[in-house]
Amino acid sequence: MDIAEELLKGNRLALSRAITAIENEYDEATEIMKKLYPHTGHAYVLGITGPPGAGKSTLSDKIAREYRAQGKTVGIIAVDPTSPFTGGAILGDRIRMNGLTLDEGVFIRSMGTRGSLGGLSHKTADAVKAMDAFGKDIIIVETVGVGQSEVDIVKAADTTMVVLIPGMGDDIQAIKAGILEIGDLYCINKSDLDGADKLVREINMMLDLDSLMTEWRPPITKVVASQNEGIKELLDTVEKHRTHIEGNGQLAERRTKRTRDEILDILSSNIGTYIKGKIVDSGRLDGYVEQIKQHETDPYTVIGQVMDEMLK
Amino acid sequence: MDIAEELLKGNRLALSRAITAIENEYDEATEIMKKLYPHTGHAYVLGITGPPGAGKSTLSDKIAREYRAQGKTVGIIAVDPTSPFTGGAILGDRIRMNGLTLDEGVFIRSMGTRGSLGGLSHKTADAVKAMDAFGKDIIIVETVGVGQSEVDIVKAADTTMVVLIPGMGDDIQAIKAGILEIGDLYCINKSDLDGADKLVREINMMLDLDSLMTEWRPPITKVVASQNEGIKELLDTVEKHRTHIEGNGQLAERRTKRTRDEILDILSSNIGTYIKGKIVDSGRLDGYVEQIKQHETDPYTVIGQVMDEMLK
Repeated sequence: MDIAEELLKGNRLALSRAITAIENEYDEATEIMKKLYPHTGHAYVLGITGPPGAGKSTLSDKIAREYRAQGKTVGIIAVDPTSPFTGGAILGDRIRMNGLTLDEGVFIRSMGTRGSLGGLSHKTADAVKAMDAFGKDIIIVETVGVGQSEVDIVKAADTTMVVLIPGMGDDIQAIKAGILEIGDLYCINKSDLDGADKLVREINMMLDLDSLMTEWRPPITKVVASQNEGIKELLDTVEKHRTHIEGNGQLAERRTKRTRDEILDILSSNIGTYIKGKIVDSGRLDGYVEQIKQHETDPYTVIGQVMDEMLK
Repeated sequence: MDIAEELLKGNRLALSRAITAIENEYDEATEIMKKLYPHTGHAYVLGITGPPGAGKSTLSDKIAREYRAQGKTVGIIAVDPTSPFTGGAILGDRIRMNGLTLDEGVFIRSMGTRGSLGGLSHKTADAVKAMDAFGKDIIIVETVGVGQSEVDIVKAADTTMVVLIPGMGDDIQAIKAGILEIGDLYCINKSDLDGADKLVREINMMLDLDSLMTEWRPPITKVVASQNEGIKELLDTVEKHRTHIEGNGQLAERRTKRTRDEILDILSSNIGTYIKGKIVDSGRLDGYVEQIKQHETDPYTVIGQVMDEMLK
């Protein structure tokens, strides 16, 4: 079947295959994306990130249900950059055995690194576009973890929600420092636990320090996702942020910047793949490594040579 | 001063400057590395990784002290890939205000992402080589976190130690699954807490499932780093692993593979930087983005054009 064409007609299997093609870097992925691209830009993308244990999966399930109740269609992409070995997406697959998957208005997909060298952020961005072209109103991108990869991934979002929970100890300070800089909204999950108010105060203190935060002060919402408490209020803050960035032109700006970043990201990934293919497949790399072992050259000299040779 | 030459003479300031050059991608970094490269390969590299809160910093301090007591010189590289905004290395700088820093036989350095687009793994590998050429016997590479970046970083190690602590809850399962595949050794820190034995059993169960683990069964050592308990026993397992991989040729194999991976990693990073520079600085990227906005083209077509143009 013509995957792009079928996807645009609303064929779920085609959407699923498109994302598989993106994830595994099949040759047809680029052709599919070229066809889908003109049909993107309608969905609103909500990124959800936070440390492991924050209950992001439960939270995004509840958020999806609430959006469904509002009559909106939802796509969920659960990204697990944790393990490059197992193919990731362990959490995503584990938890999604619930009623939500039976709802035709929801499409859930988990993505992992599948052993490839990076590229998860632009693959996620392409999967978002596929769901967007498919016609989803809201796309939730949920990532496990707090590292660089997660930050790269949430860059695909229009609104980024950072989820934290009370009582994560001292080490969480460092995580917070990193994560606080990307949040448009904060969600304190499991806020029935001790320390929720303390955490709200701490985040407020950190927000106070940010002098750039003149136009938009990220709201902090306490929820208990497992009990469905506070979800409506949380989505009100999403809506508020959306209205804010639509009104002041920031949404358009963010999306332009995102297009820019995506081009650079895909370029660098494609070029890496191209060059690796050229020097690995030809066996040249093994030759270089042997020469290095024999102390006839060093990695830095080899790299200079290869670059001179390959670049116009 | 000639940084490489001074470094090889044992000048600590030169070592510090070399790592700064590596970290900030100064032009001279490549020249420095070319000169240092022939003097590398003597140090033994111990990677320490594990989830936030596992006490890796305290642990590596104690390990360093124990190696010092054995008469060995030690380098510590604390890598913090957490925050691309703050420049990372928050934890590293915070904790290292102790007696260890006064010991001339120890060189401690923290590294973060300093806002650059990735590349932290090959920068860490180069910093390891600088310390190696400087003459350190043991180099400890310690990373905060558990994502893809951390895994890439510990690839620079001869022996990789995974640190876990009891009672990290359910979500830690996924982390463990990812991390368990890279560990040559397991260290249960804070093993005076409830659940230490349970954790040992869980890890053992996971190790039982790994059918590839025929030659080397990763030992699991319980320690209380803050009390200096179990550190000697832990280093005995490092020594055992070292003897094992030296004996069966695996160390040489790992190092060859590492050279290979490093070349690919640096190549793809350098070429990415080169091309980004070319299309960003010339303003061409902005032109493309504008065309995409006007629906005259799409990112995938642009990428194809740029690649055709720049690569031989």
